Amino acid sequence: MWENSLSRLLKINYPIIQAPMAGGPTTTELVAAVSTEGGLGMIGAGYLSPDQLRSQIQEIHKLTDKPFGINLFVPKPYTADGKTLRLAGDLLKPIREELQVGEDLLVLPTFEQDVKTFEEQLKIIIEEQISICSFTFGIPSPQVVTKLKENSIVVIGTATTVEEAILNEKAGMDAVVVQGAEAGGHRGTFYGHEDRGLIGLMSLIPQVFDVLDIPLIAAGGIMDGRGIMAAKCLGAIGVQMGTAFLVCKESGANALHKEAIMEATEDQVVLTRAFSGKMARGLNNGFIEIMSQKEEELPDYPLQNELTKAIRKNAAAKGSTEYMSLWSGQSPRLAKKLTVRQLMNKIILEAETLHSKL
Amino acid sequence: MWENSLSRLLKINYPIIQAPMAGGPTTTELVAAVSTEGGLGMIGAGYLSPDQLRSQIQEIHKLTDKPFGINLFVPKPYTADGKTLRLAGDLLKPIREELQVGEDLLVLPTFEQDVKTFEEQLKIIIEEQISICSFTFGIPSPQVVTKLKENSIVVIGTATTVEEAILNEKAGMDAVVVQGAEAGGHRGTFYGHEDRGLIGLMSLIPQVFDVLDIPLIAAGGIMDGRGIMAAKCLGAIGVQMGTAFLVCKESGANALHKEAIMEATEDQVVLTRAFSGKMARGLNNGFIEIMSQKEEELPDYPLQNELTKAIRKNAAAKGSTEYMSLWSGQSPRLAKKLTVRQLMNKIILEAETLHSKL
Repeated sequence: MWENSLSRLLKINYPIIQAPMAGGPTTTELVAAVSTEGGLGMIGAGYLSPDQLRSQIQEIHKLTDKPFGINLFVPKPYTADGKTLRLAGDLLKPIREELQVGEDLLVLPTFEQDVKTFEEQLKIIIEEQISICSFTFGIPSPQVVTKLKENSIVVIGTATTVEEAILNEKAGMDAVVVQGAEAGGHRGTFYGHEDRGLIGLMSLIPQVFDVLDIPLIAAGGIMDGRGIMAAKCLGAIGVQMGTAFLVCKESGANALHKEAIMEATEDQVVLTRAFSGKMARGLNNGFIEIMSQKEEELPDYPLQNELTKAIRKNAAAKGSTEYMSLWSGQSPRLAKKLTVRQLMNKIILEAETLHSKL
Repeated sequence: MWENSLSRLLKINYPIIQAPMAGGPTTTELVAAVSTEGGLGMIGAGYLSPDQLRSQIQEIHKLTDKPFGINLFVPKPYTADGKTLRLAGDLLKPIREELQVGEDLLVLPTFEQDVKTFEEQLKIIIEEQISICSFTFGIPSPQVVTKLKENSIVVIGTATTVEEAILNEKAGMDAVVVQGAEAGGHRGTFYGHEDRGLIGLMSLIPQVFDVLDIPLIAAGGIMDGRGIMAAKCLGAIGVQMGTAFLVCKESGANALHKEAIMEATEDQVVLTRAFSGKMARGLNNGFIEIMSQKEEELPDYPLQNELTKAIRKNAAAKGSTEYMSLWSGQSPRLAKKLTVRQLMNKIILEAETLHSKL
């Protein structure tokens, strides 16, 4: 029941992809373990410098000879407006004082730097002969897509609406990750307002399936064999799971972040722009509450992300979950503290048992 | 594959429930046709006077000898605050002028009247020997539940969170409709803030299933055999479908409402409090846009609902979809203009084909 066009395309046993959670969770151990178990491990390389990326790729190669993938953030222009930056600064000031975090140096990122980093990351992916590359927050240029395909790299896009899925197919993507409203972490919406893409998988998968020719990978709230089989019924031939792998032993997420998910209920998971300036889903906490009053006026991603970086880092070091970003999908009650091997064995068995019982 | 504890409980062939869409769609013809085809037709009686309810029950009995159900709104206290009412009046004034709708008489509803109507509706359900009664916007009192059960009436609750599902089970409900964030029309959330209940079915069904003993019915975005099978994989043993039946020939929804859904895309479906003071999902239009600036300050349900009644009625008569409430779930692209018989045959065949292919 597991072999299909996606598993053949990616050369994996089970079309189960570990979501490329940028910012810590996708350690070398996590990525290697998922691939070793027959799924697809992915490095969330969005925040990695080119050197860090190359080094992690080489480390993973030492642990597994199975394919794994890299996810990159597609750079998007943005502007730093003084008034908006001051507003964010004023809101963050009391939190900085409470945590005793000094003023950030405020060397703000620029679009030009982001583009340069993106190009260097792509160069490394080609040089290191990575076989799978996925993209979030947009679609790379035709030149980039052509270059990757010339190097036999499978390219995968991300969509949160039918229109975004079509744009990915037209751009030559080999497959598309369809991110439902349930998904934890950043929304991948790139075409139109962020609110447009908040569609539950029960609605989104079949509507995308009906207009798409390339394989569809479902992401959002899927944590076990039930979700895998449900996604299959709706038209997906693979799944991408974030939160389920985030709480695994091998994940690099902060231990308090993992604990918070294990104790959370589904109604505590909210959407917020507070941490990064881009809509993302995670557990509600003090930081989100404080920022919610001016949430729509905060600077765009990645500016707000830079402005809150020192606070998040300090809060994590101090164990103050009230000021950390506790990304999670809408299914925290389904989270299990397992090793990757235990999790993969569990969900594969669940799906096979459900399959035989239907 | 269709017989299970829910189909036996409700005495129907297929555990497919036509959602009790109050305010027009659930005509005698629609309810009777769904039950005749082996599903469960439901009268959305929330806005019906006791006389209207009795009369419709008797009309349906003439068309079918199969069981059908009634859905009631559980009354909830509310207060009319002068400032809030004036704010709503000011916002509605230009729309009244454009449509040439006179000022409403403003005989506002009261909680006491709502309770009286609810009690009369319950009396009729018992007198007319209805076998199934479901509830939205709350859980009826223990006295009501006991009385209905003494009269061999199956009682079904509505939940949008795990906690609400547990409250329904504790109250003695025989089954619970789990309404995902995808669902069209009013949100059933009754415990805590409306935002709490916006959980996609991919997340909500398994999390409810794991803590519930009574049968679980999935509602939200399900339009065809794929959705039915997916809901089953996740743990539901029945589905409740609204939008799919709303566009059927027998439905009493305005023809322009049906057309609007047939032409809509999934990203045009939004959440709004503008029409009724309670969060509901429908197609975006001018009315929602105008009211969105002050949406959080509008009077609570049912006050705002009364204040907008004349506008909605007039807009419907004039064919002005910009000022009508165009309720829809998040799957409008899956809508088909069919008779109930055609729809039921189609989805049953789809589910059976998918089942045999898995």
